[in-house]
Formats: sequence, C-alpha cells, structure tokens
Amino acid sequence: MAETGLSTAWSRALGLRLPVVNAPMGGVAGGRLAAAVAAAGGLGMIGMGSAGSVEALERELAHVADAPGHIGIGLVDWVAAARPGLFELALAAAPALLSVSFGTDLSWSERARAAGIRTATQVYTVDDARRAHDAGIDVLVARGLEGGGHGAPELGTLPLLEAILDAVQGPVLAAGGIGSARGVAAMLAAGASGVWLGTALAACEESLLSPGGRRALLAAEDTGTIVTRTFDVGMELPWPQRFPARVLRNDFTARWHDRVGDLAGDPGARAELAAATAADDPRVAPVDAGQGVGLVTAVRPVAEVLAEMCSGAVRLLDHPSR
Amino acid sequence: MAETGLSTAWSRALGLRLPVVNAPMGGVAGGRLAAAVAAAGGLGMIGMGSAGSVEALERELAHVADAPGHIGIGLVDWVAAARPGLFELALAAAPALLSVSFGTDLSWSERARAAGIRTATQVYTVDDARRAHDAGIDVLVARGLEGGGHGAPELGTLPLLEAILDAVQGPVLAAGGIGSARGVAAMLAAGASGVWLGTALAACEESLLSPGGRRALLAAEDTGTIVTRTFDVGMELPWPQRFPARVLRNDFTARWHDRVGDLAGDPGARAELAAATAADDPRVAPVDAGQGVGLVTAVRPVAEVLAEMCSGAVRLLDHPSR
Repeated sequence: MAETGLSTAWSRALGLRLPVVNAPMGGVAGGRLAAAVAAAGGLGMIGMGSAGSVEALERELAHVADAPGHIGIGLVDWVAAARPGLFELALAAAPALLSVSFGTDLSWSERARAAGIRTATQVYTVDDARRAHDAGIDVLVARGLEGGGHGAPELGTLPLLEAILDAVQGPVLAAGGIGSARGVAAMLAAGASGVWLGTALAACEESLLSPGGRRALLAAEDTGTIVTRTFDVGMELPWPQRFPARVLRNDFTARWHDRVGDLAGDPGARAELAAATAADDPRVAPVDAGQGVGLVTAVRPVAEVLAEMCSGAVRLLDHPSR
Repeated sequence: MAETGLSTAWSRALGLRLPVVNAPMGGVAGGRLAAAVAAAGGLGMIGMGSAGSVEALERELAHVADAPGHIGIGLVDWVAAARPGLFELALAAAPALLSVSFGTDLSWSERARAAGIRTATQVYTVDDARRAHDAGIDVLVARGLEGGGHGAPELGTLPLLEAILDAVQGPVLAAGGIGSARGVAAMLAAGASGVWLGTALAACEESLLSPGGRRALLAAEDTGTIVTRTFDVGMELPWPQRFPARVLRNDFTARWHDRVGDLAGDPGARAELAAATAADDPRVAPVDAGQGVGLVTAVRPVAEVLAEMCSGAVRLLDHPSR
C-alpha cells in the first residue's frame, strides 16, 4: 500500500495516511480541493490569498463541514492583518494545521498554540528556518525558488531542504518544483517529513482555478514561468518586496517585467489586468505556476494525481532501479 | 557497503563503485582531484575552464598517469574551439567520459563516439535534453540553477531532473546544489543514474582552488551566491550570454552586478580583477560556488567527503526515518 510505504513520523503523528499537504493557493485551494486532498489521505489546506476575507473563508469552510480527514488553513500575514476577524475565524475553525506566511512577526503562532492548533510557516533560508524554529512553529515549509505563486526566490528546493535539515531539529515539509512521483521520492529520501504540493494539484478538477488559467497551465512547458512583481505592482497589491511571485510568462510579463518601476500607479495597466481577470484571459491575467508545470498535462481528480505520485514514490523507494 | 547500496545501472556499466562524478571545474578540478575521486570509486573529471589549454591538460593528465580507477575530461565548447589541439588531446587521452558543454553544436560527440569514448553534456531544459539525446550523447548532466560556476539558470535541479527523466530515455546525472548525503539520496531516489558534485568537492585538499578561494568557500552561508555575468564581462571572457556563472557575492559583484553594461571594456575594472586574482583576494576575484556552499565548512580529503555523503545516502535509502 502506498500509504504504508510513504508514511513519516510527522504524518503518523497527525494521523495522515499520506505525507502530503496541498499548498494553500489563493484562488485555487478552496474547500473542494482541500476536501479531496484530505479524503485521499493527505492534509487538505484551504488557502486565503490576497483576496482572502472572512466571507471567503466561511464559504470555503462550508465545503469541508462534512469532509473526512484533515483540513488545514493557510493565510497571508499582511492579508490577515488587514482583514479583522480573519485570523480569529481560522482559529475558531480548529484546523489540523494553521499556516501563516509572508510576514516577519511570528507571534501569531502563540495564539494558535494556546488554542491547541499546530502551526506552519514557509521558510526560504537557514536564517528563516532558525527564526521559525525558535518561535516554536511546529512544522517548517522549506519552499524553494521553483515554487509557484509568492515566495522569496532564494534557494532551490533541494539545497534548501538539505541546509535546513542540517541546521534545525523538527519536521520539515518540502515545497517547490515537486511535480511527479520522482519528486516525492526524492524529498522523502532526503529526510522531508512530507511534501507540500502546489502546481501539481492546481489544475485538478476540484480546484477553484478558472478555465482559462487551467488551460494555460496545461499548455505551459518547463521553462514557461518567471519570478516577477509585475502583477502585484500592476494591481497595487501590498506584497512585501521580498515576495515576488512565480507565474506563467504571458503578454503582460513580456511587456512589463523589465520595467516594473514604470508600472506602479499606471491606471491603464491596472484596468487592463482587471478586464483580463474578468474575461479569464491568461494572456494578460496572472496564473501562478511552479517549475513543475511542464508535467501538468491533464485535468484530473486530486485522488488520481495523488495516487499516481504516491504509489510511484513507493515503487522508487522500495524497488529502486539502482 | 556504501558501494553496493548506491550503485546504479549506469555506474555498474562504467565499472564505478560509486555513482559519483566530480564536476570538471576549471581551475579547481585538476588531476589530483580527479585521481582522488577515481580512487574513492567515482569518476574523476579533469576540468579545463576558460584558461584551459593543451599545456594545462597535459600537466593535469600527468597527475593521473598512474591513477587507479576512472578518469574523465570536461571541456568548454568555445575554449576547445579557440585552442587548436585541445579537443584532440582529450580524445587521445581516451578518457572514461568526455564532457563538452556550453555550446550548441554537438557534432564533437560523433568524433568521440568514433574513438569509442563515452560522452556527456550539460542540459538545462527539456529541449536541451531532447537535442542532446537525439545527438547521441551517452549521459546527460541535468544541471539545475543551484550549481556553481557557469550554466544556464533555467530550472531548479529537482524539477529539471523530473522533467528530463519524464521526457527522454537513458541515463541522467543530477547536478546543482547537491551538498550532503541527503542530496545524493534524493537524486538517486528520483531516478538519477549518478550525482555530479561541484561545490561539495571544491574545497577538498586535492583541489587546485587557491587558499583565498578556499577560505571564502568555507565562510560562505547558504544565501552567499549570485548568478552574474559580472566577472566574465569584467575579464572580457567570451562566455555566451546564456551562461552566466554562480559565484560568491563579494565587493566586486556588489559594485558591478546591477550595471554590467557599464563594465564592458572598463580597463580599471579589468586591472582590478587581474590584481585581485594575482593577490588571491576573494573580496574582488571570482570564486565559483553553488547553493550548497553553506554545508562546506572544512578542508577535507575527497575520500572523507565522498565516504560521508555516500554512506549517509545508503542509510537514508535503506533505513529511512519515514
């Protein structure tokens, strides 16, 4: 059984059948995706991105009210700070894991701990990892620069995981560029306590991704992504400088990536992005994607993708071709 | 035994005890380093970088005349083209593996094949891999953007390896950011036929690296590197645009990386680099380093580093903590 072969001390402690967590992708990882991951034996995260709100979280939580398995919630630090009640709602939902990332103040984790809720945060360097560990975060998400969406583009997933496991004790999930069974096997062999999958699940049937975004993901090749602040600047979203996003290259990045400074406050660009988003046109609107995007070639159910990745990883680890 | 647990079909076919190759680092991987890697059971590569020449290769080959084990040679495409006799000398040495990288014309491999010599080349994308495979290259080196020295900064090592193994048949070595036993285990679990180690071996006793360069490597942390054309432009080396180098950040990169255009043809900068290189001053002179550099903390013999990495990898693969 895949479940037996792949379990880790961390996944067993959480009662998971698979050491798999979906990244809480804003606008993608809603309640249906989380429920599907949880039903497959992983930890299903509901993500609240820059458009996150109390109302949105309530809506997505309603989808998992009767979900079997483990559901977690992922928030963005500056979004939670700007939306009163969002963090409190997340706490009140008593998630199996609460992740807050993209900030510097980790004191939120004390409130979660007081409520008996396990905590996670993304880290990008050994320094980040030491700070999160010292703050008592339960599980670190070592997010390499290959990952889609927002993150600090510091180290590749492989050397990041190696460096963090060398520097700190405690469970570490590997994130960024894990696109197939081979990536799952690699990260678990290296000592990760689990894998945090984004792009590999973003095009699944259960995701909130728009049809246009999904088509763009399926069409993209391995080199089809770029790390840029273009869309955040164009949409005047207050993402910290340290956290650009890896997205699909498109017409908009081709025109603006090299002159982001000119883009700030450009009303035409902002209107163009709003119109493209409304029209679901990925030639202009942003589509988050990691470097594993070339392996995403079909819209499939979460259960099918996870079964393939995890049973393949078991085969690689138990019956190596070596 | 580490040797048994780690062998792959590729390493067995070559008669290696370990599926390990050292990167043919110019100015670092001379005959002594190659001989030490070969003696430890891997494939020891002599590297000819931008300063490579017939004389330099003859000198380094003299160090391996009596070396037990397998010795290979790595050349730079544009350097070989500029130095008559260099490629022919490499062929005449009948290496166990001949690697030529950083070019677009792979017809050199036909001459090697005609001489019965196995071939390798670095690839950075699925497209590169398909081209190299179609040209009949024997083993592809999937070099992720984490790697030190020159390379195309396209994909992280993990998603690159996954994508290439999905796209082409045949053996693939993983390169870039492999800094410890965890990285070796990860890449072999993912299906690599071996690992190609650069930075992890660059500070070893047997390397040609200068004392100053070695001290800088030992002092560097995980985030201490940068991908830049600064030194190549400053020294007027004709590296193709596609291949900047990952080096340690230093005073020179701090001053020039963001305005490389101004650096071209600047006689003062060129003189400064020449003086710093002559004085072995890594505050100004270039030191190649990959993202695993934070794990390099001591000058050790090659045999000790490889034994630790490979026996650790065996433990991770055979007795996982999962």
